[in-house]
Amino acid sequence: MRLAVYPGTFDPVTTGHIDIAARASKLFDQVVVAVYDRPSKNLLFTTEERLSMMREAIKHLPNVTADSYGGLTVEYARRHGAEVIVRGLRMVSDFELEFQMALMNRKLAPELDLICLMTSLEYSFLSSSIVKEIAALGGCVDGLVPSHVIPLLKSKLTEGRG
Amino acid sequence: MRLAVYPGTFDPVTTGHIDIAARASKLFDQVVVAVYDRPSKNLLFTTEERLSMMREAIKHLPNVTADSYGGLTVEYARRHGAEVIVRGLRMVSDFELEFQMALMNRKLAPELDLICLMTSLEYSFLSSSIVKEIAALGGCVDGLVPSHVIPLLKSKLTEGRG
Amino acid sequence: MRLAVYPGTFDPVTTGHIDIAARASKLFDQVVVAVYDRPSKNLLFTTEERLSMMREAIKHLPNVTADSYGGLTVEYARRHGAEVIVRGLRMVSDFELEFQMALMNRKLAPELDLICLMTSLEYSFLSSSIVKEIAALGGCVDGLVPSHVIPLLKSKLTEGRG
Amino acid sequence: MRLAVYPGTFDPVTTGHIDIAARASKLFDQVVVAVYDRPSKNLLFTTEERLSMMREAIKHLPNVTADSYGGLTVEYARRHGAEVIVRGLRMVSDFELEFQMALMNRKLAPELDLICLMTSLEYSFLSSSIVKEIAALGGCVDGLVPSHVIPLLKSKLTEGRG
Amino acid sequence: MRLAVYPGTFDPVTTGHIDIAARASKLFDQVVVAVYDRPSKNLLFTTEERLSMMREAIKHLPNVTADSYGGLTVEYARRHGAEVIVRGLRMVSDFELEFQMALMNRKLAPELDLICLMTSLEYSFLSSSIVKEIAALGGCVDGLVPSHVIPLLKSKLTEGRG
Amino acid sequence: MRLAVYPGTFDPVTTGHIDIAARASKLFDQVVVAVYDRPSKNLLFTTEERLSMMREAIKHLPNVTADSYGGLTVEYARRHGAEVIVRGLRMVSDFELEFQMALMNRKLAPELDLICLMTSLEYSFLSSSIVKEIAALGGCVDGLVPSHVIPLLKSKLTEGRG
Repeated sequence: MRLAVYPGTFDPVTTGHIDIAARASKLFDQVVVAVYDRPSKNLLFTTEERLSMMREAIKHLPNVTADSYGGLTVEYARRHGAEVIVRGLRMVSDFELEFQMALMNRKLAPELDLICLMTSLEYSFLSSSIVKEIAALGGCVDGLVPSHVIPLLKSKLTEGRG
Repeated sequence: MRLAVYPGTFDPVTTGHIDIAARASKLFDQVVVAVYDRPSKNLLFTTEERLSMMREAIKHLPNVTADSYGGLTVEYARRHGAEVIVRGLRMVSDFELEFQMALMNRKLAPELDLICLMTSLEYSFLSSSIVKEIAALGGCVDGLVPSHVIPLLKSKLTEGRG
Repeated sequence: MRLAVYPGTFDPVTTGHIDIAARASKLFDQVVVAVYDRPSKNLLFTTEERLSMMREAIKHLPNVTADSYGGLTVEYARRHGAEVIVRGLRMVSDFELEFQMALMNRKLAPELDLICLMTSLEYSFLSSSIVKEIAALGGCVDGLVPSHVIPLLKSKLTEGRG
Repeated sequence: MRLAVYPGTFDPVTTGHIDIAARASKLFDQVVVAVYDRPSKNLLFTTEERLSMMREAIKHLPNVTADSYGGLTVEYARRHGAEVIVRGLRMVSDFELEFQMALMNRKLAPELDLICLMTSLEYSFLSSSIVKEIAALGGCVDGLVPSHVIPLLKSKLTEGRG
Repeated sequence: MRLAVYPGTFDPVTTGHIDIAARASKLFDQVVVAVYDRPSKNLLFTTEERLSMMREAIKHLPNVTADSYGGLTVEYARRHGAEVIVRGLRMVSDFELEFQMALMNRKLAPELDLICLMTSLEYSFLSSSIVKEIAALGGCVDGLVPSHVIPLLKSKLTEGRG
Repeated sequence: MRLAVYPGTFDPVTTGHIDIAARASKLFDQVVVAVYDRPSKNLLFTTEERLSMMREAIKHLPNVTADSYGGLTVEYARRHGAEVIVRGLRMVSDFELEFQMALMNRKLAPELDLICLMTSLEYSFLSSSIVKEIAALGGCVDGLVPSHVIPLLKSKLTEGRG
């Protein structure tokens, strides 16, 4: 059985993330979406909220589960017996930083590989940051995040102002 | 069973290509290295020579085979029931051209995915072109290509001059 | 009256080129699509064929005309009293080469400006080269070029082989 | 009448910004320089100060005015009946982030277009950030910002320390 | 006598930095590693600690010394009679930001030149930031920093939590 | 004595190349501009012509000489006892290809280092290719190449047509 870990901050999960998770689920027997548990400074949602939004968003994918983790990503992957880490590569992502991370990961855990899936065209301009920016300015984010995320995003942004 | 196709010109195969094939062989049940059969204009080796060097270079990998093909890569992959196309991404490769190809492939064959493996550090400066350039100028290519490729490369370059 | 020149090789015109021409036509009073008349080495179509396909493709745009030219683009633009040169910037285009050309143009003709329109998402993976490559390999190019270009592309490619 | 909006933070306005505004003023009937009113965290000047410095800097350009705005840029542009948003593209700017913004803007307001003017050679290394950094370290910023900005920059930086 | 200044934050010094200092020491008569004395906000080590770790790390290089400085780098270099500023260029560094800095430096001090040494392959994924990130997450940094830096890094990170 | 080799094709030498040679001449005791002797396919000038134009262009620089060479650049540098290879890095040059070459050179000749000088702002859009293109289209190349190169360029281009 081949297990893949798809790590990220997912603050919040976007439709682009779900596209990557769904595509990874066709290539590997089991996929764990690993929500990075880091101090919420600079984050909008808590780890619990991010994990809960993710679980709702992937419930239609039978061989995909979600979990949260701390520490090094490669240590988490190794502990769970994963063979591969999955990354979505956006045209506007920092390709060179991804490369640096890939090389460092291989130094730390040579038995683990990292694969990149290139994001679909319709999600190529999409990121959690841009979603938060648009929502904060009152723009419409329909189709950019799963529908259950929209009210949570709105209430969180209102709360921040309250 | 998951089948991956790893396409390329392989003129000639380098140790970097074998690294990608070996890593892909751990992630998928079967890997076909697909040598692109195109007019040898600008190529040093014929399709038969490129295929033969590749077969020798992968014979230690039990679930990897080599084949040659013409036409669209996605059509070849589809015909063989592949689920995924594998690409090695070098830091010095043209990331944006890879992206363009990935997007075009998805338009032509939406059921096929494309994954990228990032080349290992020690092969990050390596390409078939640079190998041919160094060999043509009398430099040493030990470690850059499989050892059985070295005499073939030398005799081909001498022949070109003869 | 503000006149813009949109220069290119257009070998052949794609739906992405027409998108740029149409958008430029909303911003300027008159747009001239200028087909570069260069030796057809490495080109599939003659200058006359490229101009004729372009004229057909823009006939629905009332303030857009097509012309062919030789020599420096800035000289052509200057001779026609243009105030601006329009370029479509694709994500996969070579941004730095565009910049170099823009800077050189300003040295040669400081009174002329160059503006870039960023290609629409759906055309961001599209270029004349990739269209020719797909067509040559027997792939389907519907939607990638105006429909009247498809039979011309097919017959030209067959002719090349005959 | 064609109206263009040139949005930015302008903290403070540089001679490179004025070059873009002046060039845009030749291409469109009216240009509004739109100073983004955001919380001055990480900014040196208040929105009022930034707007006032801009007004002084563009007073020689008859068809250019300055304004401040909050919310989405596309909403501001739409409200004012603009047909186009203008951006200056520096060689050292993040081309890919610009592209992402352009694509997102088109999703939010498809009737609005975005054009890029490439910065002139002599301003290609210039940004508000680098100007503030040099001034903070006691370097000379003559020619990098309009002359009326220099004393304001100095007094603001002294005040910060006081 | 040709004097080179190699400036940086060095928070902390990595084996990649030492590689650049050692290579610069072969090309110039004297090399001064200049530790930038800036407010330790966002830094892990104080200026004194960074300078002391650097001095230990370069003590085997007879013509290399270390110093700390404030203000503009070009002013420091000029004051010490340097002819050249040395930078290590990593593949994952921001090449364009380096270029911007180089151009600005030449405006501020035209008599000073800036040279770039490209980092060795084995350090191409290495930066002070990634070292701190790995250490903070409990990963092993052997070989990434000089050995005397390891306990200092550990105790500093523990202290931060205490 | 420190010897630097500055290799290139120089077809023809531009004012940007001379700027790099002059700056290198201040940093090293002796600089050899090494004109690459390769088959003139795709070149406008013969090796002798390129070498002769270069010699004329550097005669004001006392510690700079010109030579032609074949084979590997590192072998040429090694044979002449050079300690360093100099490259001019243009913003529009292919930074990643330079990196690849630097890494390959270090594998072939670890004792040789490669330094990059970033081109001056006024030459950042300049290359031999763009000079030839402008001249071929009848544009003015004053200031882009040394003045003695202008008539040679014109007569060569006329001859090509004759």
